[in-house]
Amino acid sequence: VPAVQPFADRLAGLVAERSSSVVLGLDPDPAALWPGAVESAAAKGSVAERTADAVARHCTAAIDAAGSACVAVKLQLACFERLGAPGWAALGETAGAARAAGLLVIADGKRGDVPVTARAYAQGLVGEAVGPFGPVAGLGADAFTANPLLGADSLEPLVAAARDHGAACFCLVRTSNPGADAFQDVAAPDAPLHEKLARMVDELGAETIGATGLSAVGAVVGATRPGLLERLRELMPHAIFLLPGVGAQGGTVEGLAPAFSAGPAAALVTASRSIVDAHVESGGDPAAAAAKSAEALRAAAWAVADGS
Amino acid sequence: VPAVQPFADRLAGLVAERSSSVVLGLDPDPAALWPGAVESAAAKGSVAERTADAVARHCTAAIDAAGSACVAVKLQLACFERLGAPGWAALGETAGAARAAGLLVIADGKRGDVPVTARAYAQGLVGEAVGPFGPVAGLGADAFTANPLLGADSLEPLVAAARDHGAACFCLVRTSNPGADAFQDVAAPDAPLHEKLARMVDELGAETIGATGLSAVGAVVGATRPGLLERLRELMPHAIFLLPGVGAQGGTVEGLAPAFSAGPAAALVTASRSIVDAHVESGGDPAAAAAKSAEALRAAAWAVADGS
Repeated sequence: VPAVQPFADRLAGLVAERSSSVVLGLDPDPAALWPGAVESAAAKGSVAERTADAVARHCTAAIDAAGSACVAVKLQLACFERLGAPGWAALGETAGAARAAGLLVIADGKRGDVPVTARAYAQGLVGEAVGPFGPVAGLGADAFTANPLLGADSLEPLVAAARDHGAACFCLVRTSNPGADAFQDVAAPDAPLHEKLARMVDELGAETIGATGLSAVGAVVGATRPGLLERLRELMPHAIFLLPGVGAQGGTVEGLAPAFSAGPAAALVTASRSIVDAHVESGGDPAAAAAKSAEALRAAAWAVADGS
Repeated sequence: VPAVQPFADRLAGLVAERSSSVVLGLDPDPAALWPGAVESAAAKGSVAERTADAVARHCTAAIDAAGSACVAVKLQLACFERLGAPGWAALGETAGAARAAGLLVIADGKRGDVPVTARAYAQGLVGEAVGPFGPVAGLGADAFTANPLLGADSLEPLVAAARDHGAACFCLVRTSNPGADAFQDVAAPDAPLHEKLARMVDELGAETIGATGLSAVGAVVGATRPGLLERLRELMPHAIFLLPGVGAQGGTVEGLAPAFSAGPAAALVTASRSIVDAHVESGGDPAAAAAKSAEALRAAAWAVADGS
């Protein structure tokens, strides 16, 4: 009996319970926070501390408003770490608010480095650091994103840590930005580079497949190129797909069916601006607009996820 | 007249002044700190705070011991962020100690993400975040490393921020770990992938070439594969090469001459464990061993850098 329940099992339970495949992306921009978060932020402390407090309140409010339609949050580490130590504290606070709302926490930092450094990243994300005064707990994320450019040896410590802590490692395979084609689609002798990455994801995850048939090594695949999904699912039959790019970046849920062919928990649809900034287009209360947008995405995605 | 002096100009001045091309790599492992740093660490605070304080003292002691033989420090962000908010504070403190010792600060985080997120990383590394209570200053690094897997659009905000702040962006081209060959050396139709990355580095840097003939877009090239250096220098005549892998990873300075063919400030030799952990093999005082190791590397690297 494993000491910890694998990520895929926990995710599958939540997906079924909430009839949802939606991940709430939190990329807080201090210049575009919900007004209530700024008004209620701490009046004391440094500018960095007050800004970070406003960021934490903004994220907590978004979780309160939209979380019940979602199964996880995806926290964009760049948006927290630009505020230094107070930003890193706000990251922990936001992760705690997400857990309290029953959501899984995906730390989106796209880390990747040589093996010794990858172990340090793993300690910070899902493990703990060993030191002279006792262990120092990391963020305690349920999953994280990783950049595979450095190769399999750079990912192995991340995958091992994920497996040991019942977490998941989502490797970039084909990202959602326009410039991705210049490298990720380069034709290697046998196949495009993203197919090489997909094969590596499948191999790295082979030893971690649980009762759900899903592994602890997932894949980030942009929803902006739905034409690639069928082939990528074929190459990674056990991987959970994390699908950014729906909404603001132009992807639609209707094109995502191949990602769900391995089951309703086999893919996650992430949306950030289209939920948190919904009020910018619709007007009215940010929380109400976010709740409405998240529920609409949940229903649309579930029709695709449950139908396949 | 530019408001800020370009990184390459500042580096060239330091290299000439110190007759050095050495970068002191700081990858602090809380379980292997210098004994004096642990003994003098704060006795109060949380375990994370006390550990982070010991890390900052360790790094400061290493800078005091070895810094005068070097021109820059390379701070491994993973090793600080695994200690959470206190670790991020220790990172800032270590950067301050390096600046006080006249060293440039290279933030080694290998960040890379879609353009909107890349802008957030740039704010944290070399710029400032705009928020409701005023600007929040980032780390203020002189340079940083970046992962180019997402393509040119993901790097452009990083390069623009580097240029505007007189900093440099070092893109991964060919890393020093054994697994790097599986992707970075893949044969695309015309050339290996690392050559495609090299061409992108050259293009991204073209608009930033200063009086030294060097650009604000550098390249991380592992010293473990010296056979690639000549071709990579040909493809990137204006890039500063950041060369990890000397010492513990098996690279030698003698093989690095092609990197210096564009001048003594055109390449930087980074060493971490071989300096900071020199006492583990040699015995004796860690500071004395680090000073001796750094000076030996300075002399060996300068013979190569100045001779070409």
